[in-house]
Amino acid sequence: MRILSNSINKYIGKSISVAGWIHKLRKLGGITFVVLRDREGLLQGIVEKAEANKLLANLSTESVVEMTGKVVKEDRAPGGAELHVDKVKIISIVSEDIPVEINKKGLKANLDTLLDFRQITLRAPLQRSIFKIHSVVTNSFREYLTTNDFVEINTPKIVEEGLETGGAEMFSLKWFNKKAYLSQSPQMYKQIMVGALERVFEISPYFRAEKHNTSRHVNEFTMMDFEIGFIESWEEIMDVSEGYIKTMVTALKEKCLSELEMWNVTLPLVPKQIPRIKLSEAQAIIKKEFKHDIIGEPDLDPEGEKLISRYALEKLKSDFIFITHYPSKKRAFYSMDDPKDPKNTLTFDLLFRGLEINSGGQRMHLYEDYVKKMKSRDLKIEDFTDYLVVFKYGMPAHGGTGWGADRITQRILYLENIREAILFPRDINRLRP
Amino acid sequence: MRILSNSINKYIGKSISVAGWIHKLRKLGGITFVVLRDREGLLQGIVEKAEANKLLANLSTESVVEMTGKVVKEDRAPGGAELHVDKVKIISIVSEDIPVEINKKGLKANLDTLLDFRQITLRAPLQRSIFKIHSVVTNSFREYLTTNDFVEINTPKIVEEGLETGGAEMFSLKWFNKKAYLSQSPQMYKQIMVGALERVFEISPYFRAEKHNTSRHVNEFTMMDFEIGFIESWEEIMDVSEGYIKTMVTALKEKCLSELEMWNVTLPLVPKQIPRIKLSEAQAIIKKEFKHDIIGEPDLDPEGEKLISRYALEKLKSDFIFITHYPSKKRAFYSMDDPKDPKNTLTFDLLFRGLEINSGGQRMHLYEDYVKKMKSRDLKIEDFTDYLVVFKYGMPAHGGTGWGADRITQRILYLENIREAILFPRDINRLRP
Repeated sequence: MRILSNSINKYIGKSISVAGWIHKLRKLGGITFVVLRDREGLLQGIVEKAEANKLLANLSTESVVEMTGKVVKEDRAPGGAELHVDKVKIISIVSEDIPVEINKKGLKANLDTLLDFRQITLRAPLQRSIFKIHSVVTNSFREYLTTNDFVEINTPKIVEEGLETGGAEMFSLKWFNKKAYLSQSPQMYKQIMVGALERVFEISPYFRAEKHNTSRHVNEFTMMDFEIGFIESWEEIMDVSEGYIKTMVTALKEKCLSELEMWNVTLPLVPKQIPRIKLSEAQAIIKKEFKHDIIGEPDLDPEGEKLISRYALEKLKSDFIFITHYPSKKRAFYSMDDPKDPKNTLTFDLLFRGLEINSGGQRMHLYEDYVKKMKSRDLKIEDFTDYLVVFKYGMPAHGGTGWGADRITQRILYLENIREAILFPRDINRLRP
Repeated sequence: MRILSNSINKYIGKSISVAGWIHKLRKLGGITFVVLRDREGLLQGIVEKAEANKLLANLSTESVVEMTGKVVKEDRAPGGAELHVDKVKIISIVSEDIPVEINKKGLKANLDTLLDFRQITLRAPLQRSIFKIHSVVTNSFREYLTTNDFVEINTPKIVEEGLETGGAEMFSLKWFNKKAYLSQSPQMYKQIMVGALERVFEISPYFRAEKHNTSRHVNEFTMMDFEIGFIESWEEIMDVSEGYIKTMVTALKEKCLSELEMWNVTLPLVPKQIPRIKLSEAQAIIKKEFKHDIIGEPDLDPEGEKLISRYALEKLKSDFIFITHYPSKKRAFYSMDDPKDPKNTLTFDLLFRGLEINSGGQRMHLYEDYVKKMKSRDLKIEDFTDYLVVFKYGMPAHGGTGWGADRITQRILYLENIREAILFPRDINRLRP
């Protein structure tokens, strides 16, 4: 039976087998020191036997081997024990040096090298730790929502027309004899599904054809969406969002402390209630506290996002802050206007350490409200028949939000570029590997 | 606080509020009988109060209302209780009749009607029950694998070249200035990820441009993939598959008995071990038991799949059966040939009630084996450099399988067409809604 690196210290004095990649190899006299890497981490093997030494002599790092031997207590080794190897069995021989060194602490490579050799650089412990965290980000979303009676759905990624054609650009393709588009959001489908299941969520890839090539944009990304019907107040959408954040941070604490430590970062701070402040108030605070004047603008600029997040952390002890009540003209047409202040909407963005990680709000639910709003924006009713039909046939008050799973991962680890939080990122210059 | 239909019988004698869609409406003298539908089911309301009656008078079905009143025990009503309504509050008025009747038991509509009006037909209790089951199919996959140390990954759906270009056709699109394809399988990426995380899985949409329009094929579908490294025997891949099936059937039993009952179907039968028989043995059994002769063919035909499944059910008490050792020439090049019988591979298909729901096996892990096999098939090494690089730099013995989540759902409920198990199916004729 194969023993994993993180539990060899339970076998001190016993003979066990381990298997993995040769992470480091050093020969000293007649002794070979092997650092072996498996999915849980690293372990040290000492090889003195002649036959085993001979087998290792011609191997490069990344060769895959099984080693059998006795576990000996050794405080300086990873895991507090090392393996005195009796026997080596070779599973896969690597005979040439790998193109990127992945066995140095921290893998110091520039972003292009990291991504050009992604198949190999993902093997570096620091790199793969990012994706353990990414999986906790998505899994805790699912866990929290499933526990709260949401049903997971799978909506199409190929669509005939886009709901937000006014906003982001879409990739088009030929679907047999028709023109089709890659979906950029499940907005229409998740609202339709409120009509059937009331509470739904989806975690799925989406696509935007925007040409900008920034550290926080890519053209294919993983979104996490939920939509909830029969809300009594639009604040419920923020309550559910907050519930997820708390579940996620608890899961990080339970499962990822060693990964956070590798990156030398602390758990995100979440207070009892994540602060919720109006855009206009946020702008006033930013001016007062930081002399950055964006009062009257329809949104926060990237600098404003950073400053209000700094304020939330320093004054309110929170790494998260909801900014609410964005102006109607800057939000999608389906947003519900605030009945008390119709120039603004019942919408919010959630900022996490200076970066927007979700955007959401209450949607209109009456057919006549859609017709009125769409006319005022010169949108053609007949372009949206598949969507509008659900409002014609009865919809409850509802709302939801969409989250960037890659962005959340990026901010947990303070990664400079979102591409670091995506296994195989896609942008205007990158389609491979 | 809103009470859901499935728990009103806990409030007998008390005053509560419920909310939902008007599923049925019947007036009898001065009394209105309302059947209200919410996400949990149906409940009956009796309205005698004049004001409430007046409010209901002009409503069509599918209007959304909140009703407040007293719960009274009534054995003939759904849930064993009914609501004597004092007050009605209208959330959304429907003023025209819906295009498809969704309040008859079973929603008898043909497939085209069902799909053309999908936004509305999904509201029918029988229809939405399909997707509660679909969510259990995917969720138990995730649950089983996460518990067994697999990491969930998100791989790109836009690729520059296809790994299985010899097989299914791919949709192409313009990605800025390049040609790209919609991914038809995560095969390359999940194998790469074995090199980094050893055990990975993904649940995601994939696309195949095949023109066939059958009851078990669509062009966009939800696949569930896993891949596992450091296997000691290829049978481990079937062991993991079996573990998932058992987890899934247990979850159906715990969460979906009422949905199964609506469809009048029984839980799938799973014996202690799901039978595993070689293709050649299956063909011999099919000939002997059913006089259907496909001996020597490289696969089972649809009739053969049905017959061997019938045999598995009748003789082995199993709704599932693994067919193993498919001929090398019929399986993808990355399949591992059986060292004891190199004309055949260490691969399998899993049949569920007559339908193939997964396909998998052990993959080759040595670079030289890939080169040799690809040369023998006239595949160009240089077309696969992104893939082959991982084998050059050390891979363990590994394998995995890909599951059709929609097909599993289809077979659980004995649905005639796979489109019934997909929220918004996509095929050569269908891009909407």
